[in-house]
Amino acid sequence: MKAIIKTEEKPGLIYGDVPEPKPGPDEIKIKVAAASICGTDIHYNRWDAIAVSFKEKFGMKFPIVIGHECAGTVTEIGANVKTIDVGDRVSFETHIPCGRCYQCQTGQAHNCADMEIYGCSCPGCFSEYAVGPASVAFRLPEGVSLEEGSMFEPAGVAMRAVEEGKIVPGDVVLVYGCGPIGLMTQQLARSCGASRVIGIDIDEYRLDMAKKYGVEVINAKKEDVVKRVLELSGERRGVDVLLELTGSPKIFDHIFTLIRLEGRLVTIGHPISPVTVDVTKSINFRGIQWKGVFGRRIWDTWWDLAAMVQAKKLDILDVVTHRFPFSQFEQAFAQIDKGAGKILLVNDV
Amino acid sequence: MKAIIKTEEKPGLIYGDVPEPKPGPDEIKIKVAAASICGTDIHYNRWDAIAVSFKEKFGMKFPIVIGHECAGTVTEIGANVKTIDVGDRVSFETHIPCGRCYQCQTGQAHNCADMEIYGCSCPGCFSEYAVGPASVAFRLPEGVSLEEGSMFEPAGVAMRAVEEGKIVPGDVVLVYGCGPIGLMTQQLARSCGASRVIGIDIDEYRLDMAKKYGVEVINAKKEDVVKRVLELSGERRGVDVLLELTGSPKIFDHIFTLIRLEGRLVTIGHPISPVTVDVTKSINFRGIQWKGVFGRRIWDTWWDLAAMVQAKKLDILDVVTHRFPFSQFEQAFAQIDKGAGKILLVNDV
Amino acid sequence: MKAIIKTEEKPGLIYGDVPEPKPGPDEIKIKVAAASICGTDIHYNRWDAIAVSFKEKFGMKFPIVIGHECAGTVTEIGANVKTIDVGDRVSFETHIPCGRCYQCQTGQAHNCADMEIYGCSCPGCFSEYAVGPASVAFRLPEGVSLEEGSMFEPAGVAMRAVEEGKIVPGDVVLVYGCGPIGLMTQQLARSCGASRVIGIDIDEYRLDMAKKYGVEVINAKKEDVVKRVLELSGERRGVDVLLELTGSPKIFDHIFTLIRLEGRLVTIGHPISPVTVDVTKSINFRGIQWKGVFGRRIWDTWWDLAAMVQAKKLDILDVVTHRFPFSQFEQAFAQIDKGAGKILLVNDV
Amino acid sequence: MKAIIKTEEKPGLIYGDVPEPKPGPDEIKIKVAAASICGTDIHYNRWDAIAVSFKEKFGMKFPIVIGHECAGTVTEIGANVKTIDVGDRVSFETHIPCGRCYQCQTGQAHNCADMEIYGCSCPGCFSEYAVGPASVAFRLPEGVSLEEGSMFEPAGVAMRAVEEGKIVPGDVVLVYGCGPIGLMTQQLARSCGASRVIGIDIDEYRLDMAKKYGVEVINAKKEDVVKRVLELSGERRGVDVLLELTGSPKIFDHIFTLIRLEGRLVTIGHPISPVTVDVTKSINFRGIQWKGVFGRRIWDTWWDLAAMVQAKKLDILDVVTHRFPFSQFEQAFAQIDKGAGKILLVNDV
Repeated sequence: MKAIIKTEEKPGLIYGDVPEPKPGPDEIKIKVAAASICGTDIHYNRWDAIAVSFKEKFGMKFPIVIGHECAGTVTEIGANVKTIDVGDRVSFETHIPCGRCYQCQTGQAHNCADMEIYGCSCPGCFSEYAVGPASVAFRLPEGVSLEEGSMFEPAGVAMRAVEEGKIVPGDVVLVYGCGPIGLMTQQLARSCGASRVIGIDIDEYRLDMAKKYGVEVINAKKEDVVKRVLELSGERRGVDVLLELTGSPKIFDHIFTLIRLEGRLVTIGHPISPVTVDVTKSINFRGIQWKGVFGRRIWDTWWDLAAMVQAKKLDILDVVTHRFPFSQFEQAFAQIDKGAGKILLVNDV
Repeated sequence: MKAIIKTEEKPGLIYGDVPEPKPGPDEIKIKVAAASICGTDIHYNRWDAIAVSFKEKFGMKFPIVIGHECAGTVTEIGANVKTIDVGDRVSFETHIPCGRCYQCQTGQAHNCADMEIYGCSCPGCFSEYAVGPASVAFRLPEGVSLEEGSMFEPAGVAMRAVEEGKIVPGDVVLVYGCGPIGLMTQQLARSCGASRVIGIDIDEYRLDMAKKYGVEVINAKKEDVVKRVLELSGERRGVDVLLELTGSPKIFDHIFTLIRLEGRLVTIGHPISPVTVDVTKSINFRGIQWKGVFGRRIWDTWWDLAAMVQAKKLDILDVVTHRFPFSQFEQAFAQIDKGAGKILLVNDV
Repeated sequence: MKAIIKTEEKPGLIYGDVPEPKPGPDEIKIKVAAASICGTDIHYNRWDAIAVSFKEKFGMKFPIVIGHECAGTVTEIGANVKTIDVGDRVSFETHIPCGRCYQCQTGQAHNCADMEIYGCSCPGCFSEYAVGPASVAFRLPEGVSLEEGSMFEPAGVAMRAVEEGKIVPGDVVLVYGCGPIGLMTQQLARSCGASRVIGIDIDEYRLDMAKKYGVEVINAKKEDVVKRVLELSGERRGVDVLLELTGSPKIFDHIFTLIRLEGRLVTIGHPISPVTVDVTKSINFRGIQWKGVFGRRIWDTWWDLAAMVQAKKLDILDVVTHRFPFSQFEQAFAQIDKGAGKILLVNDV
Repeated sequence: MKAIIKTEEKPGLIYGDVPEPKPGPDEIKIKVAAASICGTDIHYNRWDAIAVSFKEKFGMKFPIVIGHECAGTVTEIGANVKTIDVGDRVSFETHIPCGRCYQCQTGQAHNCADMEIYGCSCPGCFSEYAVGPASVAFRLPEGVSLEEGSMFEPAGVAMRAVEEGKIVPGDVVLVYGCGPIGLMTQQLARSCGASRVIGIDIDEYRLDMAKKYGVEVINAKKEDVVKRVLELSGERRGVDVLLELTGSPKIFDHIFTLIRLEGRLVTIGHPISPVTVDVTKSINFRGIQWKGVFGRRIWDTWWDLAAMVQAKKLDILDVVTHRFPFSQFEQAFAQIDKGAGKILLVNDV
């Protein structure tokens, strides 16, 4: 079958032939319908420092089919599989838990101490067919399309951000960053009790998209972010919840002042360099609660997300700006450099 | 000034003259703009067993101006008052906390162990001017009208119901009862993360109103409630959250089966007679969490509500079906017997 | 091998020979060290209405080795088992989750919608060797003996009671019932933040045991329970948390008045008949939060318990009053009728 | 009367005469029994940068009686005071809430947006008699001595640390720092569900005191902190909860690695300089929840503490190493430089 493959520790990917995979006893096989491109896939293509660190941490072996955000229909299941049936429509969770460590046994499997990564520790899904552990397959409910399902992994990050924000009805919520996950986070925050949602970015196109969802936007290049946020938050003197999605180290010089006393910070974006924090003034005196997020709760976040998509409270596909067949993956990756929301690779075989 | 007064322990109310009240050192005086009629006021009018129990419990003394759900503009403040200014637009909380008991000192003042009741322990607000403790006056924020403010006390019950429901994004929420508070609860549940809201009633007019808010309705007289709820809740096999607003003792014979295993029940309606509960099968084996609600958290619920009204996520006045001047209070009470949503008494002086 | 077997739907059990079991692909086999007798086992022996209801609900098939509270050393594992190794010392959880339903997928597997029961849906552990699903085997940590491990299932009920009590430091906690689980609950409550623990029973021997753990005891036959609890709870005017372990329907006529306003009730005992509840006065006006408990959270409760046993904050074996070899099971069951704490059956083969 | 006074913006304090204070309408007057010396008082004595920042932020006016941690008996109450009676034994909370801001109205008064500070915004308690707002007076319950009460403010920080740690039964808790508040925190953690408490310091005397409370100690000068903590936390691979009390900026280079994945960090110590944090690796990938603490919840923390002291689960006075009369305040401050636990100033008049 055809697949997008990484063959060696150098930049570049190949669209070529690989043997059709056979599910192991605990695995399932799906006919892939669509797969979305993640930032990690871009790192694998470029083969930069982050790609190398993933290879070392999670044991990538070449050649490997990459890709991990996908959905498809189950065509075959391994002998031990009891939770998934042939014909089910599923999407894969990327974090593969060991099932044995303290985290796995106490409801924190999304941050397993011995985690493996789908599409890195084992082959992924940029291919006609894909196999994966049944333990990370989520059955898509009725009313959710396979294209929507292929976006559940990144949309799950948005859902998790909102969950960890622990929004109380009426809260003023600030989402820093209006990229695809930011825009989904904003839609969800609006639907989950926020009385107002503020979005910050420096890209007018993204800010215009945010406005569509009823978000009050601030262009950080043109406006005084601190002043505007304090105005918009009124008597709260800062937002109740700040969801940080930019991963920009430099915004840590002011984000704490945007949050009201005893407010909450959730960091989802991963800064590439350390930041400086005045613990006394920014964390202690302000009484901040700061939660770092990695992955989606298995399966709480997925169920929550599925329900919100079914209910039309989140339009996942609205942040998809381009679609390409697997065979045109090079145009897809090129498009990212030119500017894009989420890009779907579709299986046209 | 003119007021609606209860003069003795017999049925009936009088619209007559009373001296304009003077605020004590810890009180404020408002010019009443509007006041809504509560079920308790109907009991006072009828002077039934519930009215008598309130008189005995909370020390009602005649003659007394009744009424407790209101909003107005502050015209005078007592010498010690620091939290309210002349000119503020305020609404009163009915539960007057002592400030001294364990509940008051630990964030549970809404259920003070030595509570007094506005419009019962002391004169209320069905009058041109009213006084009340500054400690139970809530400043209405910009963008909230005085008519909306006069509905904050009952709307706060809807807000509290949703807060205690602890809705997780995507939850299926059932609101049993589509009266004015039920309809507000449904609107709020929809805005606070519920993926679907189910409403049950036996009155087609109310069910039609519920539909307007996107609620999936069940007429308990015409449909099999258990069967329909199980259908609508799908793989959850029952709703995540059931908010009980009817106060009907007889529905306790089936409501537990409407809730999924480990789901949540919040009772807000007050049944007039005890109910029978199979603790083993209905509570323990199902792992139910049941929370009884009385009053609004002071002031958390009020802030939450104010933000949702400002954000147009709750249209409080949509459940107001009639308005009468104080002088026509008899028509107002008569209308209730004929059928009505919430009725506002407006100060036309 | 020798085992205690139920052969037909009549009273009685047999100590006889059965083939040594072979673990299936997802199962493990243990050499049983000790097993404790549960109330359910007594029902199976008597073959009363409760036994019949279990047989019907969970599909008991004869002949069957009964028993489900045990610990032993793993001698063999099935082909798919990854979470348990030969040589591990394990204890079995009784609730066997399906892994597929909503509850299983969202952290509530202890109350699986399609649950099976160890020692009922499948053979149990009153035998020299036993098999069971690897998914319900808990590895005992160092410092926990096999005898202690054989008590983890019932001790887990005590641990769960305390967890669901959500004790805030300084809380006054009432444990209604001083049987073996009540006594373990009291020890744990004392170690988990309660400033005082009150124990109620009608058996002086049990009350004396409770006193040993620093519990303030009330003999419900000799003292006015309501008066004493209100005295002991002081300004709280009722306990913060009431953990109900008696399963006595009749105490529901007064337990709500023992709980302070906005306090918490956890019911763990299973009343055999329905109870009458005044929802208005007992639940709503008091603002009670009531949680029904069934089973132990998998595996949170087990980890919590293991840590408390390791730390010597719970002496599980202190409630064990008798030990018998499997072959003397008749004396063991006879002892229960005469009066006993927990009884251990030990494998003397 | 005699008092310890700050007369000007220079180093030093004076023991001299001031007029006996008269309570305002919302204030109470107490005969001071004992008062403990806080780090802030040392700053006022030295008149360093921190003292200047407090003066500017909270409006200190000279001459001023300093001191804020105290207990005494009420001798007089202002005209509006309803929550305190003459003869009550009380202790003062230092954070004086405005009662009007968003924080004050929603259960977060301890971090009031317009806070004043007792003993800084207004005169304090190092004097024979003291006045203070009734709103920050806590009635000491029976069984708590005035000396114990004079330590409630700092002991409340220890109580709050444990509360915010949200200890689950069985948790492994690390308290970084074994000064007086650290030692109280360790006692409380032990009593509130921790299965093991680890204490780190560099002072052998303090570590020996910690050992007395059953704490497993690490001398950071002599041992490899990371290695030891990982050993002690076993399969959790890090502690569940880390309570940071040193305020040392440099330990932020390793504290995140001491916490298990998805564990909790509470910072109570106030570092004097900013720290560097790798958000990606230390917060996000580890899924850390970080809470900054300032002050004691009013009055939840005080009630919790009072109950734990009454129950003898915290021996507050064990960390008091010296007592001096007010007149010998110079020896008291000198003792601090030589080394001391908590020092009490007692009113010997």
